[in-house]
Amino acid sequence: MRTAADRYVALSGGVGGAKLSLGLAQLLQDRLTVIVNTGDDFEHLGLYISPDLDTALYTLAGRVNVEQGWGLAGETWSFMRRLRELGGPDWFNLGDGDLATHVWRTRRLAGGDTLTAVCQELARRGSIAAGVLPMSDDRVRTMLETDAGTLAFQDYFVREQCRPRVRRIRFEGAADAKPTSQVLQALADPALRGIVLCPSNPWLSVDPILAVAGLRPALRAAGVPIVAVSPIIAGKAVKGPAAKIMAELGMAADSRSIARYYAGLVDGLLIDREDAALAPDMPLPVKVTETFMQTLDDRMALARTCLAFCAELAAAAAGAARGSLGAGPAP
Amino acid sequence: MRTAADRYVALSGGVGGAKLSLGLAQLLQDRLTVIVNTGDDFEHLGLYISPDLDTALYTLAGRVNVEQGWGLAGETWSFMRRLRELGGPDWFNLGDGDLATHVWRTRRLAGGDTLTAVCQELARRGSIAAGVLPMSDDRVRTMLETDAGTLAFQDYFVREQCRPRVRRIRFEGAADAKPTSQVLQALADPALRGIVLCPSNPWLSVDPILAVAGLRPALRAAGVPIVAVSPIIAGKAVKGPAAKIMAELGMAADSRSIARYYAGLVDGLLIDREDAALAPDMPLPVKVTETFMQTLDDRMALARTCLAFCAELAAAAAGAARGSLGAGPAP
Repeated sequence: MRTAADRYVALSGGVGGAKLSLGLAQLLQDRLTVIVNTGDDFEHLGLYISPDLDTALYTLAGRVNVEQGWGLAGETWSFMRRLRELGGPDWFNLGDGDLATHVWRTRRLAGGDTLTAVCQELARRGSIAAGVLPMSDDRVRTMLETDAGTLAFQDYFVREQCRPRVRRIRFEGAADAKPTSQVLQALADPALRGIVLCPSNPWLSVDPILAVAGLRPALRAAGVPIVAVSPIIAGKAVKGPAAKIMAELGMAADSRSIARYYAGLVDGLLIDREDAALAPDMPLPVKVTETFMQTLDDRMALARTCLAFCAELAAAAAGAARGSLGAGPAP
Repeated sequence: MRTAADRYVALSGGVGGAKLSLGLAQLLQDRLTVIVNTGDDFEHLGLYISPDLDTALYTLAGRVNVEQGWGLAGETWSFMRRLRELGGPDWFNLGDGDLATHVWRTRRLAGGDTLTAVCQELARRGSIAAGVLPMSDDRVRTMLETDAGTLAFQDYFVREQCRPRVRRIRFEGAADAKPTSQVLQALADPALRGIVLCPSNPWLSVDPILAVAGLRPALRAAGVPIVAVSPIIAGKAVKGPAAKIMAELGMAADSRSIARYYAGLVDGLLIDREDAALAPDMPLPVKVTETFMQTLDDRMALARTCLAFCAELAAAAAGAARGSLGAGPAP
């Protein structure tokens, strides 16, 4: 049975992950910690830009542009217009208000603050109750080997619009990166009851988190159910290039491939009702539910199902443990 | 007699200087070179900001916010609003479009371009026919010794709103700074017919230019009339702290003090009609005219008077030279 003290951790990339994080945050408030991918971070125009962290922070602060899923609501675009006039690089859209986040963060980092500290202050100023943490304060960069050469994540994702064929994905720096003490603390919390892998792209958004040296063992050592939400519905990604990349990496673009990919780490997979037919033939426990999130209610409903699934899996594990000890029902 | 090839140089600070520069540019097009004060330049939020250069460039490109005299017309302010939310330093207003200029220039400078090269590209992109040049590519910083301690220019001017009492003004780096080859070339041009010191603050905006090692001799070596427009009308500065600073430095705040200050460098001073009574008792030739510029016509009229005054002074000097040679009227 869940109690008011039960805590959860979510692993999240950008837009899709932030949607479920918001649902979880509505239910859990300060009992949620979101660990966010920073493999997409990059330096652009002299600014340190952390797209997934900002999407998480703007979303949880209720400030995100809901239509596009990223950036600030009510944004203006004078900076980009003028940058274009100057012949500056205009392939990465930076809203005027958003720019203050980047300029401010860049100054703070240059002054010696950690990304975690900066992120925590952004969360505080956004009145976000949940913890929002970068996966590491060390530099990790998602690099894609493609038929158009090796591309840094944003070059692939934004500048090249995911057109190049992906052959391999690497996480530069991951082997030398450490999870932060805040991340390890969240995972080692005795009140932790479950870990949710948001419906982010497993290869581009979740893998960089898992690639941070020591993070995968820390997830397993937490000893709580780990559930993932499949980002694929009926053979298509809700957003982004997941299905395209799966095909390029030689997988069928369906939730069964997601299950196989996560098997060994994840204890249960949530898949969409549209994929219910795949459920019987899965390498791990599956929960069929509505995973497409349009409204805040959708986000909260999926969050609730994730937490319930964690509780079920924990109960099943406890039962199995009792079974293996030959114990009967509790007195 | 002026010909179509005659060239002129203007020395300019910010708003007031840019107004007259625009008038001169309307008359002269590419036969004008404006040498701009960079003693006000500073690094803020990691950005290289050059307020006087930008005011000159925006004004000459017809892009300036005419009401405030600086910044871009039609500017938005989302960056500042968000920066304030983040508790960032908000004492220096940076418009959203303006910010692109700073970010772009900062990147170009970091990449090894000179301030002159960056400025020339900004002028080109703004379709400015006139030359717009920083006084130097070397770092010069206007520092004010005040009753509130030593203040960098923008700290005094913007953050402290010129409230502290000024005791002394220094130009850090000026002794080691060099005028650029472009500045020296403009002053050595055989087609040069006059140099105009715009109605900028002599102590804060013109002196830093004159302080650049070698620049004052280059002005005199040009061998053409140098005229200045007094920034004081009826004991008041049109804009800014000129009158206040004059009082603090022990001068009467009037055009006679301006004349005394510029004597030795300047061959003629343009003063406002309101100060006509001061004209008889001046240490140098004076032209009484309308110096208060509200419309573009005002700017052009004052520019025309400056050029005519240069021609008069040149003719008088030529006459004096003939006189000293005992020559009669030309045949």
